[in-house]
Amino acid sequence: MQSPPSRSPRAIVVGAGFGGMQAAQSLARSGADVLLIDRNNYNTFVPLLYQVAAAQIAPESIAYPLRTVLRRAPRTRFLMADVQRIDFEQQVVKANDATISYDYLVLATGSQTQFLGVPGAADHAFPLRTLGHAAALRNHILHRFEQAARERDPLRRQRLLTVVIVGGGPTGVEMAGTLVELKQAIKRDYPGLNWQDMQIVLVQSGENLLADLPDRLGRYTTRKLRQLGVKVHFQTRVSRVTEQTVDFSDGSTLPTGTVVWAAGLEAAMPTANAAPPTARKRKLKVRPTLQLVDHDNVYAIGDLAHAEQNGKPLTGVAPEALQQGVTVARNIRQQMRGKAPKPFRYLNKGRLAIIGGYAGVGKIGPFLLTGFLPWLMWLSVHLVYLPGFRNRLMVLLNWLHGYSRGDRAIRLILSSTSATPPAPTSSAPSSQTLALAKSAHSL
Amino acid sequence: MQSPPSRSPRAIVVGAGFGGMQAAQSLARSGADVLLIDRNNYNTFVPLLYQVAAAQIAPESIAYPLRTVLRRAPRTRFLMADVQRIDFEQQVVKANDATISYDYLVLATGSQTQFLGVPGAADHAFPLRTLGHAAALRNHILHRFEQAARERDPLRRQRLLTVVIVGGGPTGVEMAGTLVELKQAIKRDYPGLNWQDMQIVLVQSGENLLADLPDRLGRYTTRKLRQLGVKVHFQTRVSRVTEQTVDFSDGSTLPTGTVVWAAGLEAAMPTANAAPPTARKRKLKVRPTLQLVDHDNVYAIGDLAHAEQNGKPLTGVAPEALQQGVTVARNIRQQMRGKAPKPFRYLNKGRLAIIGGYAGVGKIGPFLLTGFLPWLMWLSVHLVYLPGFRNRLMVLLNWLHGYSRGDRAIRLILSSTSATPPAPTSSAPSSQTLALAKSAHSL
Repeated sequence: MQSPPSRSPRAIVVGAGFGGMQAAQSLARSGADVLLIDRNNYNTFVPLLYQVAAAQIAPESIAYPLRTVLRRAPRTRFLMADVQRIDFEQQVVKANDATISYDYLVLATGSQTQFLGVPGAADHAFPLRTLGHAAALRNHILHRFEQAARERDPLRRQRLLTVVIVGGGPTGVEMAGTLVELKQAIKRDYPGLNWQDMQIVLVQSGENLLADLPDRLGRYTTRKLRQLGVKVHFQTRVSRVTEQTVDFSDGSTLPTGTVVWAAGLEAAMPTANAAPPTARKRKLKVRPTLQLVDHDNVYAIGDLAHAEQNGKPLTGVAPEALQQGVTVARNIRQQMRGKAPKPFRYLNKGRLAIIGGYAGVGKIGPFLLTGFLPWLMWLSVHLVYLPGFRNRLMVLLNWLHGYSRGDRAIRLILSSTSATPPAPTSSAPSSQTLALAKSAHSL
Repeated sequence: MQSPPSRSPRAIVVGAGFGGMQAAQSLARSGADVLLIDRNNYNTFVPLLYQVAAAQIAPESIAYPLRTVLRRAPRTRFLMADVQRIDFEQQVVKANDATISYDYLVLATGSQTQFLGVPGAADHAFPLRTLGHAAALRNHILHRFEQAARERDPLRRQRLLTVVIVGGGPTGVEMAGTLVELKQAIKRDYPGLNWQDMQIVLVQSGENLLADLPDRLGRYTTRKLRQLGVKVHFQTRVSRVTEQTVDFSDGSTLPTGTVVWAAGLEAAMPTANAAPPTARKRKLKVRPTLQLVDHDNVYAIGDLAHAEQNGKPLTGVAPEALQQGVTVARNIRQQMRGKAPKPFRYLNKGRLAIIGGYAGVGKIGPFLLTGFLPWLMWLSVHLVYLPGFRNRLMVLLNWLHGYSRGDRAIRLILSSTSATPPAPTSSAPSSQTLALAKSAHSL
C-alpha cells in the first residue's frame, strides 16, 4: 500500500447509502478509479421512508439515481450488482459473477432488520428499511382499511384497524405519529367506518422512548403520543407474531391486522473469505481511522461499523455516516500519498426527532427543544438534505398540500406485483462475466 | 323495471375507468343507491401510462383514489373487489365471494391485451394497459441499460439496447417517440455506452400509422418518427417472440432486449351466467341506448361495448367512454321514472395524438394539425382532464423539468417486488362474506 502502483489505484465502495455515496463522491477527485456498487440503481433517503409507508409521499420522491449523483464525478463508475463475496487476501470483490480487484475497499453495506428470534415476526411483521418495504406497508395498511370497510363483525373490524408498532426508537415514534395523522386524513373516505376502532399501539422494551436522546425528550414524546391517542406500552416485549395477533411478554394477546417491526437491527456484512472481528449487533470493529482491524486498505463506515467516540459507540445516524464517508476518502488519499490515515472525529451538530401532530423533539448543543420548533426544523433539515431539486420540490408540495388540507395524497394500493411482466433474464453468460471483470474499471 | 320498487333502486357499476367512474358520479344524485366496484382502489389515467413506462412521471401521479372521487357523491359506495361472476337472471354480481343484487347494472370493464396467437408474446412482450405494466416496463428498460453498460460484446450490447414496439396506433407511436427522448435524456448517465447501438423499431401490420386518423396525419407521423431515428416497418407482422429475438412475417429475425406489445385488444367481460351476444374483438353488442340486446336493465360502455354511430363502430377513445357514462346515468334515471332510455350520440370534439420531439397531430372538425401546436394541445388537454389538483401539479412540474432540462426524473428500477412482505390474508371467512352481501348497500 505504501508504494502506489504505476497504474491508477482502484477503490471500490460497496453500498450507496449515506456513507457509501458520500465516500464515492469524495473520492472522485482523489486520482483513484472509483467503482460504486449497489444492488439498486438509486440512493434511498431513509429518514423519509415512514412518510412513504403512511401514504404521505411517493416512493419516487425519496429515491435518487446513483448515476446522476456520479455524473460530475470524474473516473467514477457505478455497477448495479449484488456483492456475493469479498476476498481480503486476493483483494477482490465478486459481484454479478464478475471478479473485480481493488487497492482500497470501503464497506458501507449498512444494517438489516433483526427479528430478535421472535417466532412469526419474520413472516408477519413489516420491516421498514427499504423503499420496497415502505410501499408494501402502505399497500397493506390501505388494504386493511378496505377490508375493514366491508367487515360487519365489530371485533374483526377492530382487529383489521389495529396497528402494533414494535420499537420505541425514532422509526417507531414517527410511524405512530404519522398513522394518527393518516387516520385523521382518511376518515372522510370511509363514511361507514367507526374510527374509534382504529388503535395504534407502540410497544417498547425499555422504560422510555427515543433512548438515544435525553430522558426528558423521551418523556415529552410519550406524553405527546398519548395525547394523540397512541397507546404506549413500556417494559413490554413481543413474544410471538401470528397472522392475526401479537403475543406480549406479560402473557397478553392483542388481535391486530398490522405489525410494524421497528426494533432490532444487525450489520449487513457481505460474505468474505474471513469474517472480520465484530462488536455488538455484528458490526465490524474498526480502528479510530475506520480501517478494519486486520486490513490496512479496507474501511467500514455507517451502520456496518462499530466506531466509538469518547469511549461510547456512535448511534448510527445519517450525519455520522456522511462524515465518515468524507473521512475515508481523505484517509485513502493519505494512503495513496504514502501517508498515515487520520482518526475519524464525529462533529455532532445536534439531534432531532419528529413525532407528529406538529410536534418534535431535539437536542442542539446543550439545548433541549420540544414542540413545534423542532418539528419544523426536522422537516426543513430533511428537505435540505434530500438529494435532487425535483425531489425536494415534490416533497415540499406534498407536505404543503398534506398539512394545509389535512389530506394524504398517495392513498393508492399500488403494487407493481400486480403486473405479470416477463421475468428479466437473470444469469449472465460466462463470457459476459469476464468482460465485466475487465471493463468495470476500464474508464 | 317499469314499476320502481318501494326501496331505493340499486345500481352497480363494474369497472372504474373513464366510463365507469363517470357513470358512478353521474348516478350519484339519481336517487339510486350506487355501488362502484373495481379491483383497484384508484382510477388510472391511461393516456399517460406511456410516460410512466418511459421514466417521465411517477405512477402515483396518474392514479387517483376512487373513494376521493366519490367523497361528494351521496348514496354512492365503493367496493374494492374482483367481480367473479354476473348472473343476469338473478340480477346479482358475485364479487369477493359476496353476492350483491342490483336493479340496474353498468358494465364498464374495458379491454385487455390480445396477443393475437403470436407464440411467445404473452411470455416475453410487455403490454401497457395498467400502472403495474407501466412500472414493470420502466424497470425492465432501465435494467437493460444497466446490463448494456457492463456488456462488452457489441452484438449483445446492441440486442440489450434494442426495443421493438408492436403496433402503430397511438400507444405504439407514443412509446417510440418517448423512447427517443429517453435516450437523449439518459445519455450522460452512461458515458461508456455508444448510443448508436440503441435501436427503436416500430412494427405496423398495416400501411400507415394512426389508422383511425386521416392518412395525411399518419404519413406525417411516420416522417417525424423516422427523422427522430425510429425504424418504422409497415406491412410487417410479428410471428414469434422469444427472450432474445422477434421473428417477423417476412422470415427475418431481430435480436432485441425489449418487446412492447401495443397491438391487439379484446373486451374484458366478466364471467356471466349467459354470454351476451358479441361483435368484433368480443365487444358486447348494445342497442343505440347502450342497453344490452337481451337485458333492459344492463348497460355496457367504453371498450367493453360495440357501439356504432352513422353505421361505423366507435374507436374506443376516452371521450366516448366519458360521454357514455353520462348517457347511461341519464338512461337509468329515465327508467327509474318509468320512461324510455334515449339513444347515445357521441359528440366528437376532435382527436389528438402525440408523437414526441415536440410534435403531434390532430383533427379538430375539418382541420388537420401537425407539429408543435397539436403536441402542446395534447399535453394541455390531458393535464386538464387528469383527475386531482395535486396530480396535475406534479405532472406539470415533471414536464417543465423534463422538457426544459432534457432530463428524466424517475429513472429508478423501483419495484415493490423487491420487498418480502407477509402475504396479505387472502380468503375472507365465510361469515364475512354474508356480512358483505348485506352491507354492500347499507350505506
